[in-house]
Amino acid sequence: MTIPFNIEAQAGPARLGRIHTAHGDVDTPAFMPCGTAGSVKAVPHDTLEELGAQVILGNTYHLYLRPGHELIRSLGGLHKFMSWERAILTDSGGFQVFSLSQLRKITEQGVNFRSHLDGSSHLFTPERSIEVQIALGGDIIMAFDECTEHPAEQSRARASMELTLRWARRSKDYFESHSNEVPWSELSSNKLNSSRRTQMLFGIVQGGMYPDLRRESAERTVEMDFTGYAIGGLSVGEPRAQTLEMIAAALEVLPKDRPRYVMGVGYPYEIAQYAAMGVDMMDCVLPTRAARHGLLFTSEGRVNIKNARFVRDGNPLDPQCGCRVCSRYSRAYLRHLFVSGEPLAAALNTVHNLWHYLDTMRSVRHAIRIGELSGTLLSSSQHSALSTKPR
Amino acid sequence: MTIPFNIEAQAGPARLGRIHTAHGDVDTPAFMPCGTAGSVKAVPHDTLEELGAQVILGNTYHLYLRPGHELIRSLGGLHKFMSWERAILTDSGGFQVFSLSQLRKITEQGVNFRSHLDGSSHLFTPERSIEVQIALGGDIIMAFDECTEHPAEQSRARASMELTLRWARRSKDYFESHSNEVPWSELSSNKLNSSRRTQMLFGIVQGGMYPDLRRESAERTVEMDFTGYAIGGLSVGEPRAQTLEMIAAALEVLPKDRPRYVMGVGYPYEIAQYAAMGVDMMDCVLPTRAARHGLLFTSEGRVNIKNARFVRDGNPLDPQCGCRVCSRYSRAYLRHLFVSGEPLAAALNTVHNLWHYLDTMRSVRHAIRIGELSGTLLSSSQHSALSTKPR
Repeated sequence: MTIPFNIEAQAGPARLGRIHTAHGDVDTPAFMPCGTAGSVKAVPHDTLEELGAQVILGNTYHLYLRPGHELIRSLGGLHKFMSWERAILTDSGGFQVFSLSQLRKITEQGVNFRSHLDGSSHLFTPERSIEVQIALGGDIIMAFDECTEHPAEQSRARASMELTLRWARRSKDYFESHSNEVPWSELSSNKLNSSRRTQMLFGIVQGGMYPDLRRESAERTVEMDFTGYAIGGLSVGEPRAQTLEMIAAALEVLPKDRPRYVMGVGYPYEIAQYAAMGVDMMDCVLPTRAARHGLLFTSEGRVNIKNARFVRDGNPLDPQCGCRVCSRYSRAYLRHLFVSGEPLAAALNTVHNLWHYLDTMRSVRHAIRIGELSGTLLSSSQHSALSTKPR
Repeated sequence: MTIPFNIEAQAGPARLGRIHTAHGDVDTPAFMPCGTAGSVKAVPHDTLEELGAQVILGNTYHLYLRPGHELIRSLGGLHKFMSWERAILTDSGGFQVFSLSQLRKITEQGVNFRSHLDGSSHLFTPERSIEVQIALGGDIIMAFDECTEHPAEQSRARASMELTLRWARRSKDYFESHSNEVPWSELSSNKLNSSRRTQMLFGIVQGGMYPDLRRESAERTVEMDFTGYAIGGLSVGEPRAQTLEMIAAALEVLPKDRPRYVMGVGYPYEIAQYAAMGVDMMDCVLPTRAARHGLLFTSEGRVNIKNARFVRDGNPLDPQCGCRVCSRYSRAYLRHLFVSGEPLAAALNTVHNLWHYLDTMRSVRHAIRIGELSGTLLSSSQHSALSTKPR
């Protein structure tokens, strides 16, 4: 298999790379904004492009329930449905089944669950998840896994890991026999990146909070030979030191020539730190969701924009920030929009937070290129530690 | 008084003109988007600029209650507070006091009312309204009037008109003795349009649904010599023929060298028709409010985007439309955003509707310039009459 991933520079374990997808290249380390139900909430696509997002996430669980993967397939796939020509990664649906749906029942076959929208019954199996993800047509799709709950005994974490390994095998088998069914496979080569005209399937490392299980999970997933590897089941309530330990354990084993993706993380200083450890991709709802609640990330730490101290503050939200929100609007105005319930508040706050995340990754990539990542990160994380409260 | 208004071309009673404000010129006939509480709901300012909006409305009632006119004054006025460098018109607050507030009591002095936000008691008088509007610093501000309820007996409509005339006098007197208090009066001339560095005050014609009262109201308002004149108290539930009759009655009397503004109207074919009659300015919440409810205006009539027939419709909302929404997104996607409650739905729908309104006015101005307004309007209103249901 030709791996559509090049490493261009390294600084210690950190890598500057590029993933070549059918819908454009993705510079890594990359932060991927969440486009849950086919929209990065409150942000028009052209703004997202201006922000520099090269890849966004789509959530299989949400899109499967509404508008439905068959509808999206019939309209040419998710890129065409939502008019987004850059790369898309879809998750397996597993995480939302566990966190959002009702009355779920897990068997060897898969997960029975009821929709959080209308209570209707559904079954997700590894085969079904991949079938849905092929219909959606994400450039990168994920094996169906069980996100181990936290805390979990070691025996339970092992059983869950073993189930995820069996599901990974079934995911890969289904993918390999149906990979020609992606809706855009017939598109002409001049509309797609000719170096990579198929989807890529990533496997997922689980193993709870047990480094041995994490290493074993990574080894046995790597044996199945996926295009890339994700580290899942983190940011589920564990202490941060444990998150770092689990990531480090998996990274020891994961091959250096494949993209490595930590799912569902984190704060800005965390994603910079994971990148320094050698992680290539990350996603998180935090910048978008927090924005809608008025929590903003700045070079000076976290800001709650509804705070009364901003009532008369005519300064930009973050004087160090180059985003279009900080270039134009004042804290007083952003506060007014938020406390007045104006829909523009969500839009502007989200644009700023996404800029902050994407710019953090730009700085990290620059630091790797010039070989100064650790120094940059040290000052950055020291700064964050002084000015923001860790969760 | 030098009237900051030039008429550049005429086609019958219709006029192509330009209003010179301290914050740029406004091409007329103009449609003015509503920026209720300091934001055209869901639309970032740069998008509004791209749409071609040269002037937006601010609502005195809303801004007075939150964040407060003194706060806005202390931050340099509404333009600076909201970072909008083009023209702003503020209403007098009268209409919202009548439509939104609780327990209002009208006396010769003014209107006592309770805030719809927190029930607090307030008094709006003509003097207070102008004081607030000077603090906000709109380029065009409005005399405080009573919007006569509908239906109203002739004696009641006359009494209300007389009150509005007395309040107009008091509004003008207060304005003339305090016009130097506008927050941006000290700004340097290179930041402002040097031809017009003060606010303009417009009078308002009332008179209920009685043409004689409308004419008398116009005559006696004109005697007071305002920079421009508005026709208020319309679109309050009367039949459309009556709206047209009241506008016509007032236009007979209003001087041709002053801007003429019909407040709170209307559907796209209506604003084109009023422009054809000689109206220069209009505003309405319809394009923005309807957009948030999924009602979209197109060249083929009105569209309810949540209609199930759009589920698989990959076509643009309006194939004739040049807006950025119709250039990129499909009906199926816009429907999905709306039924999924995605915040992007309000943003995209509003951008399209505003484009449709502003583009309608661009077409009207073009038709006046080439002397073909009536023909254009006939085909346009015939088209609308066939494809849309009048309210």
